Amino acid sequence: MTVEILSVGTELLLGNIVNTNAAFIAEALAKLGITTYHQSTVGDNHERLVAAIAHAFETADMIIAIGGLGPTLDDITKAATAEYFGVGLTTHEETLRLIEARSAGRFSENIERNAIVPEGCSILPNDHGQAPGVIMEKNGKIAMLLPGPPHELEPMFTHYAVPFLREKTSSVFYSRTLKIMGIGEAKVEVMLQDLIEAQTNPTIAPYAKVGEVHIRLTASAESEGVAQNLIEPIAKEIYHRLSPNIYGEDEKSLAETVLDLLKANNHTIAIAESCTGGLIVSDLIAVSGCSEVLREGLIAYSNEAKTARLKVPELIIKTYGAVSPQTAIAMAEGAARTSNASVAISTTGIAGPDGGTSEKPVGLVYIGLYIEGRETQVLTYNFASSRNIIRTRAAKFAMDGLRRALQEKNISIKI
Amino acid sequence: MTVEILSVGTELLLGNIVNTNAAFIAEALAKLGITTYHQSTVGDNHERLVAAIAHAFETADMIIAIGGLGPTLDDITKAATAEYFGVGLTTHEETLRLIEARSAGRFSENIERNAIVPEGCSILPNDHGQAPGVIMEKNGKIAMLLPGPPHELEPMFTHYAVPFLREKTSSVFYSRTLKIMGIGEAKVEVMLQDLIEAQTNPTIAPYAKVGEVHIRLTASAESEGVAQNLIEPIAKEIYHRLSPNIYGEDEKSLAETVLDLLKANNHTIAIAESCTGGLIVSDLIAVSGCSEVLREGLIAYSNEAKTARLKVPELIIKTYGAVSPQTAIAMAEGAARTSNASVAISTTGIAGPDGGTSEKPVGLVYIGLYIEGRETQVLTYNFASSRNIIRTRAAKFAMDGLRRALQEKNISIKI
Repeated sequence: MTVEILSVGTELLLGNIVNTNAAFIAEALAKLGITTYHQSTVGDNHERLVAAIAHAFETADMIIAIGGLGPTLDDITKAATAEYFGVGLTTHEETLRLIEARSAGRFSENIERNAIVPEGCSILPNDHGQAPGVIMEKNGKIAMLLPGPPHELEPMFTHYAVPFLREKTSSVFYSRTLKIMGIGEAKVEVMLQDLIEAQTNPTIAPYAKVGEVHIRLTASAESEGVAQNLIEPIAKEIYHRLSPNIYGEDEKSLAETVLDLLKANNHTIAIAESCTGGLIVSDLIAVSGCSEVLREGLIAYSNEAKTARLKVPELIIKTYGAVSPQTAIAMAEGAARTSNASVAISTTGIAGPDGGTSEKPVGLVYIGLYIEGRETQVLTYNFASSRNIIRTRAAKFAMDGLRRALQEKNISIKI
Repeated sequence: MTVEILSVGTELLLGNIVNTNAAFIAEALAKLGITTYHQSTVGDNHERLVAAIAHAFETADMIIAIGGLGPTLDDITKAATAEYFGVGLTTHEETLRLIEARSAGRFSENIERNAIVPEGCSILPNDHGQAPGVIMEKNGKIAMLLPGPPHELEPMFTHYAVPFLREKTSSVFYSRTLKIMGIGEAKVEVMLQDLIEAQTNPTIAPYAKVGEVHIRLTASAESEGVAQNLIEPIAKEIYHRLSPNIYGEDEKSLAETVLDLLKANNHTIAIAESCTGGLIVSDLIAVSGCSEVLREGLIAYSNEAKTARLKVPELIIKTYGAVSPQTAIAMAEGAARTSNASVAISTTGIAGPDGGTSEKPVGLVYIGLYIEGRETQVLTYNFASSRNIIRTRAAKFAMDGLRRALQEKNISIKI
């Protein structure tokens, strides 16, 4: 069975809101193993909506239309669907009674329009709003109509639409996403070219993200366990080829991986940021439970803060400059010492757009990595981009640099 | 001219990412006065993409295709476009030289594929990535191809696509966006209802953003000056009604407004963050030139950091708790004193998902505002949401609280 997701609403065409509903339904369908080849969006216009429904059914067995079920004049999805199927509209008495009972005397004009549905349809109850969902089946075509507000759509879909859809499908989809830092999408594809070319089930898809690459492996089978087993050997092979660059899987963030490594080694951490100014510590604090590990973050943008708070010797800044490997080292060591942490990251660089020189251009970033008992390391990067991309990349590479340093003794797999 | 936005990518069909690009382009087109009746999404499949292009051109004069311009095997948008227009593919030599110069010897196979474009097209430079944009015009049809990564697409669209689109439209569109914090979209709509209902030229469109509302005023006229004059009286009336809630216009961020206010009053600032952990200072550092004003940021997530770095008396934390108005005050005052700043913001709260109690639930956030010569203020919020939405909202409301406090003596307009 193939499904097309059809979003209805002029506010989407004007870009007033981002279409999170389509992503929600798409992800849910992928998990159910239901194929989607197209998504489309039309405004609150009867003719264009009927045409869009007809066009969708040229290639899809089913459409899921989102939005336009309410009582106002621009809510036209039920009428357009009825017209496509050549049926009339009727009042669903049970829904009407429910709506009247719920509204309990509160004035709300046109509220009875919520109960008007295409003739011969079935109803999906709306536990969080007035307009019910609709399923219309005729001539081998199925139209499912869902309300637009996410807090109505999501529970309705989960509780009432999913059981309906499960009955219509046979196989299950399962996927794993391997998250990679330190090599670009093009290089990843070269390194996996033979696997990608030979892919059948699971499929192998690389996705470029800011500063990283994700590889999604998706298998379909009669059960989740079988699908997992289909993915396992391919995942193992990809680990074998890319291991030190794979920092985690699925929902696990780089910061979570780093926090786990710190905890496993009984480390505490302090962060001293100049050009990245809060991005690294913010990524750590995004993870619940970081307080066990995170001593503090210091945003030492000024030289005064570097000397007063981090005890960076003035002479180092004077001799080598605030943006120098020496300052990066002194910041990392100072952060660890003054906060009594066993690990520290520091950043200092030229984020631009001003302040660059031919010797120290915009995009030059030094990252200091201190780990108790080891020599403090400095990573040097030249990120050619805008101020905020430079900052974002510097923060990510700093976090990934620490991950690699912490993993060095734990893993032995080499490319 | 009507445009269809065509998003390309299997990751969209699988719901792995939300299509923010379509909303970005849709909003930008609305601003230019360009009509869009349809948006569609297809996967990385050559046949279906060619069919989608052909279908889009049945009703649109122009398509804007997003994604699939990169060097990997599933990047097929350029080939599909070339096939639709009946032309071949060729290497754009200038782009190739640029890519080679930029990659400067770093190994990256297939990188030259970025320079392969449809014959007879023109190029939109990519200042933040390898794959250029493409404009293909033939037989009265225009296809504009843009890269998928938002940090590449957005500047390319703004700098290179907008001037092209302006030339294709006859009248001039001019717009101003008033940025509002502290009142929700529904209330804004009620407060402006008569203006919204009577709108003709300029149009008045509210956009709901995370924690804020934007009102876009768009006028069309024969010249920009005339369009500006059409907007002026409506903008004035909206300021009259909403003034203290309007923090800025157009591209100006809340952090920029705050930095301007600090500079104008010869203030310096220190930030002491607990639950927001780096988000506030990061927003300030995102603005170039903040170093004149920003003394330092301290992320004092642990109680030790609060007492050692910010000199918060242990007794205050013991008596009232780390999440308390008293601690927020002591953090703000401590940050100002220890860094010799004249202004300070502090945050302390329960970001969740754990750590909430019936007395101090998840979402409770105290914001301390210290301004030299005034009594330290505490703002209390209850943000009911997920960890990162709570943190983001807290950071925004802290910044906006400081804006209001700094503006108090400068403005006198009241709702």
